[in-house]
Amino acid sequence: MRLIDQTLLPTELRYVDVCSFDDMCEAIAMLRVRGAPAIGVAGALGIYLGLVERAPGSAAGVLEALDELCPRMIAVRPTAVNLSWAVNRVRRAVERAAGAAGAGGAVGGAGGAKPPETPEQSEQPKPRELLEAALREAMAIAEEDAAACRRIGEYGAQFVPDGGRVLTHCNAGALATAGWGTALAALYVAQEQGKRFRVWADETRPLLQGSRLTAFELAEVGIDVTVICDNMAASLMRAGQVDVVIVGADRIAANGDVCNKIGTYGLACLAKMHGIPFIAACPTSTLDLSLATGDEIPIEQRDPREVTHGFGRQTAPDGVGVYNPAFDVTPSELVTAIVTERGVVRAPYGPGLARIMDAARARVGFVGNSN
Amino acid sequence: MRLIDQTLLPTELRYVDVCSFDDMCEAIAMLRVRGAPAIGVAGALGIYLGLVERAPGSAAGVLEALDELCPRMIAVRPTAVNLSWAVNRVRRAVERAAGAAGAGGAVGGAGGAKPPETPEQSEQPKPRELLEAALREAMAIAEEDAAACRRIGEYGAQFVPDGGRVLTHCNAGALATAGWGTALAALYVAQEQGKRFRVWADETRPLLQGSRLTAFELAEVGIDVTVICDNMAASLMRAGQVDVVIVGADRIAANGDVCNKIGTYGLACLAKMHGIPFIAACPTSTLDLSLATGDEIPIEQRDPREVTHGFGRQTAPDGVGVYNPAFDVTPSELVTAIVTERGVVRAPYGPGLARIMDAARARVGFVGNSN
Repeated sequence: MRLIDQTLLPTELRYVDVCSFDDMCEAIAMLRVRGAPAIGVAGALGIYLGLVERAPGSAAGVLEALDELCPRMIAVRPTAVNLSWAVNRVRRAVERAAGAAGAGGAVGGAGGAKPPETPEQSEQPKPRELLEAALREAMAIAEEDAAACRRIGEYGAQFVPDGGRVLTHCNAGALATAGWGTALAALYVAQEQGKRFRVWADETRPLLQGSRLTAFELAEVGIDVTVICDNMAASLMRAGQVDVVIVGADRIAANGDVCNKIGTYGLACLAKMHGIPFIAACPTSTLDLSLATGDEIPIEQRDPREVTHGFGRQTAPDGVGVYNPAFDVTPSELVTAIVTERGVVRAPYGPGLARIMDAARARVGFVGNSN
Repeated sequence: MRLIDQTLLPTELRYVDVCSFDDMCEAIAMLRVRGAPAIGVAGALGIYLGLVERAPGSAAGVLEALDELCPRMIAVRPTAVNLSWAVNRVRRAVERAAGAAGAGGAVGGAGGAKPPETPEQSEQPKPRELLEAALREAMAIAEEDAAACRRIGEYGAQFVPDGGRVLTHCNAGALATAGWGTALAALYVAQEQGKRFRVWADETRPLLQGSRLTAFELAEVGIDVTVICDNMAASLMRAGQVDVVIVGADRIAANGDVCNKIGTYGLACLAKMHGIPFIAACPTSTLDLSLATGDEIPIEQRDPREVTHGFGRQTAPDGVGVYNPAFDVTPSELVTAIVTERGVVRAPYGPGLARIMDAARARVGFVGNSN
């Protein structure tokens, strides 16, 4: 599997060939690959690589290998919900192929499935068939993600005005998914449609996904992108230089509250004050209708050194207090529309999201972007 | 003259002894000293150091030395209005002492004053008296700045609630002035009054004066300070964690529009949306009543590398567009109060500022903080 090493962007575009389970774990741990959909695909393929390396001689051996590999992979980034989701999906696919899924195979548990003792060896699938099932499932995850991105882009492109200026935050693009991304997919489709537009990319402190990744991927395809510091968006809005704000989402509650990268809420407030539409783009798997509102979403505090030692230099005094939440929550009254692969939802979000989700539930979904 | 080398903060507190005109020019050019009031004092003392070095043998020689020194010093940071103001103030003081000020001495021009040919040598002051006049004026500038800071702090402390949480942006503190600063003076006086409070310091991209300087100087005196990225302020406000926003100002128009460090306008919008008072603190010399509104204030664009190479490492792709305004303008309707050394002004700002300025005009003012 070939990955872009995102830790080297934007100064170096280096591909790394990942040929083993351990290499894949390292690539995910070191953020060479990031963005939950992309991490999910990488983790799923990592499980396949691990099975190939272990080359089990029997179906039972394959399932035992899964018992070892799956928890190890999930532990690499325990908060990335998409990683465990994708890994467990591969595991279930293999178990189904082994005919063991129905026999009490635990999914995602520490123990995992033990195949039943089967005297009828003729019933046992060959290990190679199980490995093929794992690869097929991993590739399916990637393909579904790419297809959903494409559809999000098609629904989202209507919000990109020809001749307009789009502001985005963080990186909800190709580098975060197996496809075109979510927020940025709308830009890629708009470009395909022949629209001309400019993009303001918030640099997105502390980890600068906007200046490092969004600016990189948009510039690569010739989209006119300008980097700004996060605190400059307001003055651009006041100057009439922003026509729409489009961002991704990490989780969306049943009432339409949007959890996304820290700084999103401030942008939504500013967009509201300046009469600018504020759009969140994400797959339906990002909708978490078990949460009544965004207030129920726990906000992870991250390492203070991301703020004080961001990029090779100490920029705050030793021992100073630091507040470094990874995400914030934008209440749905500030959100103009939510764009998913199954269509566009507007207020009132409660019924709109429920309808979209009912339609999506029949399908195998996937989980949205975590940065 | 002993300066803190601000380029080394916050990791190293190193004092540099500046003993010559050239050293002072270098210290200002390299931002070892910054903040317009501090730059003004440093520039004024630099002129004195230059005169001492040149040791002119006559009053005419002193005035000739000023012709050389003053334009050179002003050119070091041509946009820092306080530097030319302070240098010219020293020059006029020397010219007055030389009895040449009335004889067509140009102030701030490239040529400067040529002393009239005086056959009556007995009328000529000794060079040493002129150098003393230069030093006296430079020290007066510093003392007036310190006194104004103190008064701004006394007027401003009323806005710091006991037990409250204050958000500030950039550095409008002791490191920017010869005294306690402007916005931060309010905190120092509040501390003196025994109030307990916490401070959120916006790191203030791109040059991080908040995390490097504000956090440093507040922590030095034991004020509880927490650094945040600029894009985190909104979520703190939503969580009820900000009771007041206090910032400095670089220029204030006749209608009360406030020009300050980029990011200030966004904060003011967010404060308004969350019902939080927004206070600007500055000396009356920052009031520029020749400007009807803030829209007339030209906004300087700075080096894109401040954004793309800010942390000792390149953080945006080569050749990407960058928007990097140094300042923004906050319309007066978002400003709760303007605190000066002559009192607090509230809306309607037009008459309030005019009254304050009339009272101040009789005095020799000084010019506010440029960062």
